[in-house]
Amino acid sequence: MDFLELARKRESCRAYIDKPVDRQALVKMVEAAMMSPSACNSQPWRFIIVDDKKRVMAMAPFLEDKLFSLNKFVWSVPAFIVIVESNANLSSKFGGKFKDQAFAQMDIGIAAQSICLAAASMNLGTCIMGSFEEKKLKALLGVPLYKRIRLVLSVGYPLHEMPREKARKAFAEMVSFNTWQSNE
Amino acid sequence: MDFLELARKRESCRAYIDKPVDRQALVKMVEAAMMSPSACNSQPWRFIIVDDKKRVMAMAPFLEDKLFSLNKFVWSVPAFIVIVESNANLSSKFGGKFKDQAFAQMDIGIAAQSICLAAASMNLGTCIMGSFEEKKLKALLGVPLYKRIRLVLSVGYPLHEMPREKARKAFAEMVSFNTWQSNE
Repeated sequence: MDFLELARKRESCRAYIDKPVDRQALVKMVEAAMMSPSACNSQPWRFIIVDDKKRVMAMAPFLEDKLFSLNKFVWSVPAFIVIVESNANLSSKFGGKFKDQAFAQMDIGIAAQSICLAAASMNLGTCIMGSFEEKKLKALLGVPLYKRIRLVLSVGYPLHEMPREKARKAFAEMVSFNTWQSNE
Repeated sequence: MDFLELARKRESCRAYIDKPVDRQALVKMVEAAMMSPSACNSQPWRFIIVDDKKRVMAMAPFLEDKLFSLNKFVWSVPAFIVIVESNANLSSKFGGKFKDQAFAQMDIGIAAQSICLAAASMNLGTCIMGSFEEKKLKALLGVPLYKRIRLVLSVGYPLHEMPREKARKAFAEMVSFNTWQSNE
């Protein structure tokens, strides 16, 4: 498959059919994430694959945002992949501080996209969530309080097979050649 | 191509042959990045494709790190893609502040990985750099001082065609099932 086709196929999936995801597929997705680059190869990530139905259901209330009516779909999700920020190595950590760059979070973004694309290549849908009741999730999963859960990805078979048209800003607004051109 | 194969093929390339990259390929890579997900679809990125040889060479001294002897390879790079953080939308911005999450930087990581994988699918090599003389780069490219250049990606045809074995931590150290398991 052409990579652009895969990138187009990958979309934030918020409706899943009631079908479990093979653990092997979840492992493959995480393996793809583990091959991602990171600042100074620090690999500042830990992955928790949650595919136990009871545990999945126990996570749902901490992912739904009732205040803003967000993420209602989490109740129909068969599996989650939780990305916890782990200790970066010293060069990444101090380099980031010195340069005011959140390298570990950029790295986790990189890994998350690997997961989403790996999923799409297996006809699985994903949605990246960055907002949740972190303390409660940490308590449920046994993640130490001093750690940060950065992202939670839902994984499952999409209810709608055809990707939607993506709502994106125009190319000319986003891209320039050899020099900065923007009204921002 | 199997996605895992592509993820394995993608590696941080620090040696390029002396051959320019078609602008069309660079555009394709950025198009893949533009299809990436972002918090609240805020698309907090602007891309500068630098393929003018003079401009590329003018960037090199600000990317090489003489102090730590890093990134010497930038002198042999035919093109760069510069990712500037742009204004996130309000929900992403305030959600991030409220949750202490650097959403825009995670989003930029996501977009960067799309670029790297799109490149690999076209047999192009990339290397993500997060450390550089930002002020001087901004002056050269005309990026306003109040903006942040988050990442610079080198792009070119790799000198060595076979990917190296990736140095990664062990699966069991990085991944657990349904609960946190780590000595960290």
